[in-house]
Amino acid sequence: MDAIEVIRAKRDGVELSAAQIDWVIAAYTRGDVADEQMSALAMAILLNGMNRREIADWTQAMIRSGERMDWSMLDRPTADKHSTGGVGDKITLPLAPLVAACGAYVPQLSGRGLGHTGGTLDKLESIPGWLASLSNDQMLHVLRTAGAVVCAAGSGLAPADKKLYALRDVTGTVESIPLIASSIMSKKIAEGTGSLVLDVKVGSGAFMKTTEAARELAETMVALGSDAGVRTVALLTAMDRPLGRAVGNALEVEESIEVLAGGGPSDVVELTVRLAREMLEAAGVAGKDPADALRDGSAMDAWRRMISAQGGNPDAILPRAAETVTVQAPSSGVLAHLDAYAVGLAAWRLGAGRARKEDPVSFGAGIMLHAKPGDLVREGQPLMTLHADETARFERALDALDGGYEVADAARDLLPLVIDRIG
Amino acid sequence: MDAIEVIRAKRDGVELSAAQIDWVIAAYTRGDVADEQMSALAMAILLNGMNRREIADWTQAMIRSGERMDWSMLDRPTADKHSTGGVGDKITLPLAPLVAACGAYVPQLSGRGLGHTGGTLDKLESIPGWLASLSNDQMLHVLRTAGAVVCAAGSGLAPADKKLYALRDVTGTVESIPLIASSIMSKKIAEGTGSLVLDVKVGSGAFMKTTEAARELAETMVALGSDAGVRTVALLTAMDRPLGRAVGNALEVEESIEVLAGGGPSDVVELTVRLAREMLEAAGVAGKDPADALRDGSAMDAWRRMISAQGGNPDAILPRAAETVTVQAPSSGVLAHLDAYAVGLAAWRLGAGRARKEDPVSFGAGIMLHAKPGDLVREGQPLMTLHADETARFERALDALDGGYEVADAARDLLPLVIDRIG
Repeated sequence: MDAIEVIRAKRDGVELSAAQIDWVIAAYTRGDVADEQMSALAMAILLNGMNRREIADWTQAMIRSGERMDWSMLDRPTADKHSTGGVGDKITLPLAPLVAACGAYVPQLSGRGLGHTGGTLDKLESIPGWLASLSNDQMLHVLRTAGAVVCAAGSGLAPADKKLYALRDVTGTVESIPLIASSIMSKKIAEGTGSLVLDVKVGSGAFMKTTEAARELAETMVALGSDAGVRTVALLTAMDRPLGRAVGNALEVEESIEVLAGGGPSDVVELTVRLAREMLEAAGVAGKDPADALRDGSAMDAWRRMISAQGGNPDAILPRAAETVTVQAPSSGVLAHLDAYAVGLAAWRLGAGRARKEDPVSFGAGIMLHAKPGDLVREGQPLMTLHADETARFERALDALDGGYEVADAARDLLPLVIDRIG
Repeated sequence: MDAIEVIRAKRDGVELSAAQIDWVIAAYTRGDVADEQMSALAMAILLNGMNRREIADWTQAMIRSGERMDWSMLDRPTADKHSTGGVGDKITLPLAPLVAACGAYVPQLSGRGLGHTGGTLDKLESIPGWLASLSNDQMLHVLRTAGAVVCAAGSGLAPADKKLYALRDVTGTVESIPLIASSIMSKKIAEGTGSLVLDVKVGSGAFMKTTEAARELAETMVALGSDAGVRTVALLTAMDRPLGRAVGNALEVEESIEVLAGGGPSDVVELTVRLAREMLEAAGVAGKDPADALRDGSAMDAWRRMISAQGGNPDAILPRAAETVTVQAPSSGVLAHLDAYAVGLAAWRLGAGRARKEDPVSFGAGIMLHAKPGDLVREGQPLMTLHADETARFERALDALDGGYEVADAARDLLPLVIDRIG
C-alpha cells in the first residue's frame, strides 16, 4: 500500500477501506507517511467527507496507535464528560467532583486551550501547586482518593491523533466533522471511560456555529462511542453568549468554587446539574441527586480532595491580574446582546489564552461580566471588568468587544441553554 | 498574510487575490510556507479549481520566483515546442534541428522522464558524451552554433515550480489542470522563447485521457502564453497508440536519426513536419519548408552540430540492451488494438523509465514495434521485440502487455493523428 494511492482514492471520492485507513494511520504515526501527504489527505477528507464506517475505522485506527486505559479494577462505574469548547465553559471543574460525590468515578483526560476558548488544564493550573501531568498509577491513586481526576493525556494515548491534530492546526484542515469527531472520540475511548456525556456547544463562541452542524457532530460522536462499547449521549447547549460571569483561568476557578459552595450563576449551576444527571444515568448509578450534593457540601469535599491529591492547595489565594478596566453601559435599557466570540477573543487578548502551543497563559487575566443578556442596565453602570497583567493589552481587547454587546429597548432571542439531547 | 488564511480561502471556494498568490508562492519558495501547508493548498486547488485570472497570477508568481531568460541578442526569432508527454514521443529530437535548419532558433529546456512516459534528456543522454547541463553562456553558444539547443533547466528558473512539482508528485496533487498548466507555462515563459507550440496528447498513454480534458488544458495554456507575450498555439494529438515504432531511450534516438535522414515511420514524420510548420509560422519565419529540410540533409546537419556542440559524438554506436524477447501474433488478422499505456508501462518495466527521480535509466531498454494498429498480421509473425539488460525484467513487462494488444477480424477506430488546433 502507499500513501499516494490512499490520497488519490479520497481525492476522487472513493470510500477508503478499513485496510487503507489502518495502514495510513499506522504509517503516519511511525513517520512512513510524511506530513505533506497526511495534510493533503486531510484536505481531501475535509472536502469530500467520510461516511460513518470510514469515521469508525479512522477512530479505531487512532486508538490502536497507542494504549487503551482500563479502569475495570475500580468498584464503581466510570463516567466522563467532554465539551467541544466555549467561552466561560468551566463546567468540568464543579462537575467532576460533583459526579464523584454522587457515586461514579470520573477519570478525565483534558487539554489546554488554543485560540479564544480556554482549556481546563490552564484553569486548574492557576491553583498553586496543582499538577496536570500524572502517571497511570498516580491517576488511579487520585481517582481512589477523590473519586475524580482531571489531568493531561500522556504521550502513549492516541499518538496518531496528537500528531494529526498539530498538523491540522497549521494546514487549514481543522473544520471537518469526520476529523473532529474521530479526534475527540479516539481520546475519550482510549481513556477507558465506561460512559460519556458530550456537551456540544452551538453559537458564535463555539466551534459549531449552527444547530445543524452541531447535531451532525453530536450524532457522529454518539455513534462512534456506542460502537466502541461506551454508553454515550450528547447535549447540544448554548454558546451564543458566555457561560456564567467569569471568563479567564483563575476567575473561572473562583466561580467554580462558588458553584461547589451552593451558589454561583444560575446557568452554570443548571448545566452542571443537568450534565451530572446525564453522566450518572449513563453510568447506571442511582445515588445522591447532584443538586443535593452541591447543597450539602459533599461535592466541595470531593473537589478539595481532588485538588489536594494532585498537589494543589484548595485554600490558596489565586493569582490576580495587576490591572483592570471597567466597561460601562453606554445607555439605559436591556443588555440585548453579549456575543460569546467577542468576549472570548477579548479575554484571549487580555492574556487568558495562547496564540501558540508553547506560549504561557496569564492566570489572572480575563473578564468578569456584571450583566448578562436580558438584564436591565442603567447608563454608566459597569457591564464588565477586564483584567490583565499589562495595561497595553486593554486597547486590543476593547477592539474585540466593539460591536460585541448592545444595550437596546428590548431583549433579543437567545438559544435555550439546553437545545437538544441526542443518544 | 499567513498560509492558513490562504488555504482556508481556497478550501471554502473563495477566489484567491493576486496578493495572496504572490505571497504564498514567494513564501513557499523561501521556506516560510511549509510543505504540509502547500500540499493542503494544492489539494484544495485540485478539488475547488482556480479561474483563469488566478492561474495567470499563479504562473506569473512562479516565473518571478526565479530568472527569466532573454534571447533578444539573437538575430532570428525563437520558437519552442512542449509536449505533455506520451509513449514513443521522440518528436523533439528531429524537430529542434529541423526548425533550426528552416530559420528559427530553438532554445529548449527539457526534462527527464518519470513514470511510463520517457524524458527527452534521458533519450539524448544515451548518446555517448552528450551533456544535458549547460550554463546560460554555453546554451547561447550551442544556439549560435547549431540553431537549436536541448538542455536541462538550471536551478534558477522557476524554482517555485521545481519545489511544488516534487511536492505534488508525492501528495496525489498532480492531476489538476490549473497546476499542470501553470507548471508547464511558468517554465516555458521563463525560458524566454518568443513563440511556443504545445503538443497536448490525448488517449490512454497520455496524461489527458479525453479530448475534452486535453482541450481545457490546451486552452488554459494558450491563454497563459498569449497573456505573457509568447505567441502560443496548441495541437491536440493522438496518444491512444504509441508514436512511431521505437519506445525507449537509444531506440528512439535511432528512429529520430532515420527521420532526419529522410526516412522513419510516417506518423513521426507527419507530426514532426506539422509541428515544425506551426513553430515557424508562430515565429514569423518564412524560410525553407520543413519537408524539404528533411530531404536535403540540412536538418541532419543541424542535428550533428547540436549533438557535437553539447559534447556528444553523432557517429557513436548507441547502447544496446543485452537481452531480447519477441512477441508473436497469436493469430492471423488485423492488429486491431495496441494500447499506448500498456506499451509505455512495459517499456518502463524493461528499464527505459525510472520509478524515483534518483534512479538511473537503462539506455538500451525498450520496445520495437513491428506492426502498428491497422496492419495485417499473420499468426506467429513478430509483433514487437522487447529489449532489457536482464532477462528477469521480461515477465513483468509481458504482464503489462497482457490485454494491451489484439489481433481481430477488423480494424478499430483510432484517433486522428492531429485531432484539433487551438490558438
